[in-house]
Amino acid sequence: MFFIQFKENKKKYIQLSDYIKNMIENGSLTAGSKLPSTRELSEELKIGRSTVLKSYEILEVEEYIFTIKGKGTFINELKIKYNKNREFTNSSLINWEEHMNKYAKRAVELDIMKWDSQYKKGMISFKSIAPDGDTFDIDGFKRAFYNRLSLEGSNLLNYGYAKGYKPLTEWLLKYMVDKGVNIEGKDILITNGFTEGLNIVLSAICESGDKVLCENPTHNTAIKILKMREVNLIGINIKSREGIDIKELKELIENNDIKAVFLIPSYHNPTGLVMTYEKREEIYSILSENNIPIIEDWFAEELNYSGDHVKSITAIGGSNNNVINIGSFSKILFPGMRIGWVFGDKSLIDALESIKRGLNIHTSFIDQGILYEYLESEQFPQFIKRIRRRYKLKYELMKEMIEENIKYEHLLGDGGLYMYVILPSKIKVRALLKRCIKRGVIFTCGDVFSVSNEDSDGVISNKYNYENGLRLGFSKLKNSEIKKGIRIIGEEIKEMLNE
Amino acid sequence: MFFIQFKENKKKYIQLSDYIKNMIENGSLTAGSKLPSTRELSEELKIGRSTVLKSYEILEVEEYIFTIKGKGTFINELKIKYNKNREFTNSSLINWEEHMNKYAKRAVELDIMKWDSQYKKGMISFKSIAPDGDTFDIDGFKRAFYNRLSLEGSNLLNYGYAKGYKPLTEWLLKYMVDKGVNIEGKDILITNGFTEGLNIVLSAICESGDKVLCENPTHNTAIKILKMREVNLIGINIKSREGIDIKELKELIENNDIKAVFLIPSYHNPTGLVMTYEKREEIYSILSENNIPIIEDWFAEELNYSGDHVKSITAIGGSNNNVINIGSFSKILFPGMRIGWVFGDKSLIDALESIKRGLNIHTSFIDQGILYEYLESEQFPQFIKRIRRRYKLKYELMKEMIEENIKYEHLLGDGGLYMYVILPSKIKVRALLKRCIKRGVIFTCGDVFSVSNEDSDGVISNKYNYENGLRLGFSKLKNSEIKKGIRIIGEEIKEMLNE
Repeated sequence: MFFIQFKENKKKYIQLSDYIKNMIENGSLTAGSKLPSTRELSEELKIGRSTVLKSYEILEVEEYIFTIKGKGTFINELKIKYNKNREFTNSSLINWEEHMNKYAKRAVELDIMKWDSQYKKGMISFKSIAPDGDTFDIDGFKRAFYNRLSLEGSNLLNYGYAKGYKPLTEWLLKYMVDKGVNIEGKDILITNGFTEGLNIVLSAICESGDKVLCENPTHNTAIKILKMREVNLIGINIKSREGIDIKELKELIENNDIKAVFLIPSYHNPTGLVMTYEKREEIYSILSENNIPIIEDWFAEELNYSGDHVKSITAIGGSNNNVINIGSFSKILFPGMRIGWVFGDKSLIDALESIKRGLNIHTSFIDQGILYEYLESEQFPQFIKRIRRRYKLKYELMKEMIEENIKYEHLLGDGGLYMYVILPSKIKVRALLKRCIKRGVIFTCGDVFSVSNEDSDGVISNKYNYENGLRLGFSKLKNSEIKKGIRIIGEEIKEMLNE
Repeated sequence: MFFIQFKENKKKYIQLSDYIKNMIENGSLTAGSKLPSTRELSEELKIGRSTVLKSYEILEVEEYIFTIKGKGTFINELKIKYNKNREFTNSSLINWEEHMNKYAKRAVELDIMKWDSQYKKGMISFKSIAPDGDTFDIDGFKRAFYNRLSLEGSNLLNYGYAKGYKPLTEWLLKYMVDKGVNIEGKDILITNGFTEGLNIVLSAICESGDKVLCENPTHNTAIKILKMREVNLIGINIKSREGIDIKELKELIENNDIKAVFLIPSYHNPTGLVMTYEKREEIYSILSENNIPIIEDWFAEELNYSGDHVKSITAIGGSNNNVINIGSFSKILFPGMRIGWVFGDKSLIDALESIKRGLNIHTSFIDQGILYEYLESEQFPQFIKRIRRRYKLKYELMKEMIEENIKYEHLLGDGGLYMYVILPSKIKVRALLKRCIKRGVIFTCGDVFSVSNEDSDGVISNKYNYENGLRLGFSKLKNSEIKKGIRIIGEEIKEMLNE
């Protein structure tokens, strides 16, 4: 009942009596109600009984409380500033379920954290695709914090600008140029991660019922965001390692009024595929001819283990203005800070800036300052090299272990922090998950990445049956965990095949 | 054209040649196009010509470029990995204006940063109601950063939880208890400031066209948020210093299906009024009888100069569950971090958590960690005392100066960081602003806080004509600026009255 935390610099009995005075004055303790005995309170708060006694003395002297011998100590009405404890006549509590709209209900429904199997301590989790916190350069981070704060002082702690911290936005524009992007007539907006970036873009250009194309399968968070906005989501099947089927794309465009296309060309989530340059150009060409906006998910650009950088669709777009690039460093660097960006045509970014201001004024300026300082430091290129090496080794270990232990139909993944395994149709992935959880291993089932699950007629025309897949994130696992975990999955599959 | 920033630890000519190689490989430099001369580039980049010469030598040896004597240096097609510079056949750029929906247009329209007179350097600005950065305890902030980061390490930098950083949410719940709030059956969600809190609450319970009551006038950001969500906003006139007119409230409730009521009982924005306890209880009682949710804006609770804490409506609600409390410390502490909260019924917060996760996963964990550490430290109570003293002095100076220099009808403001001056109807506030800006003084005009401006029939039945008011924020101004600024406003008013 008493939530008091004692400070060092003041006598405890004064702190306690002040605390109780406040509770009495503000009506938290009702007139005539009984205080705990000094013994009870000293035990509850783990302080000496004499301290409590002294506090009660002060309170009694100042008429906050009174004592009835043999009965106890009670609250005096005198000092209650708001003693109108009359019962308000509302008969019942509000049933919030009834007050919630479709949007809130959809948010809960689509929140896989609320229904999917969750990681528990001690498990080997292939679920996470977050970067390994051990790779973070904490000293470099501290230095970046200190340097930037020393330079900017309270400016970084007071209100900033909706568009973002200027040194950071300028750094990112240069980064774009380095990656072959034409930035003329374009601009950038800082957002709270990729997730907010996609939300803001959709909120500006989509209406309920608008048709948006995306790869099938695709990132479950993107599916959630799109569905929460009541977009009519149409999946284009990925039929080969190079990405979506061009014929299907053409047909869909011809037969539908498409508002926008959402694509993850590099380290596609969940499959880990990297689309070839030729395919990117082909897709860009088709969509550009039809004046259709493209939203490119550009996360984890730096997790390329082969060293062959493939130009983004944003770069292919050149001086044209139909590509919106949403990016973040969250798959490599400090995702807890939630910093991402939207890059696109100036007139679009200008409107998105107003939306951003209306949503949360701006993204944390101190975080933007730290990130800028870190990106600009010599630590950053070294960090990239280091994590690329580290994740590459894990990636290779994963590949080796899966090839050795798992009877799969297909194994996909060209980089990034996860691989995708498609199992023989005899194995039901959800059943496999149940068995693996019993043995302390967890992963993400392919069904959560499926776009057309709602109206699917069950016929799988793809070479790959993605729904029968496992996304295996490996970034945070030790080598020994990878080995043990993959072996367990492999053993369970073998058993299921024999059953 | 060349956005290169040189690092310390590597020879410049190598950095430059690497940079140009990359641009050539990724197709940013077209085959056959001419490079700037060594002289031009050395001037552009402010580096020695010999450095550029060395870079060009490397590039030529490695066949990235070739030289034609007397003509210049050109890009070799050989090394361009993506040399398909064919023109895509889209005939025209996308007209993003046409692609934007009503929401985006409303966001731009309602964004007063886009059309209202803005502060320019050197002006005396009464516009800002942000806290004074000079009050921030930067050393305490740094200490909080180091302490928390040392304790939590990379946990604070990796993905966290949508609801918030647990030590912070628990601290806030205790803070609520200290303020007389019953937290049983309630929960809390951390948001990116008050602004995001209000957005999330409305997104969960309001549909387009729903009727929401609020005080008239009210906070312009709240108006923007409500209107962006297409809420049918109905203002209840503030007719006395104690707040809204109860009779009007009752009538509006009887005649309308009210979805929710939004109120700012303490340091009401823009008027600075603090509603009496009796009024709060009366309002609570009426709304609670009618089972109507109340959204209480609880910012700046600590800026009470008189020392008389008035219980929040959230506290008055006791064990009932119809009050949603949206708060933040942004008016006193580090607003650049954008941390706020929503407190309310557990089942509601549970749904809001899913929405929050869908919007941006969570609020920056490092920021939450720093804020927690700071709030928990001994600096915080000392900080509160210090700023209360400081702002109180400014408040008193403002009052004195306004009373001396300005011919007003009413002067309002019981605390907080701003006061509200209502002028004789003869003075048009926008005209006054124009004249003041010419003399280097800027303030916020009352019209932006008006709720019923759209369908107003021009008849003002209030004792106070709020639209003819000036909100004067004083938090960031020096005493000399307050004196000079108020004198200038006073002089202009005098002149206008004489015209």
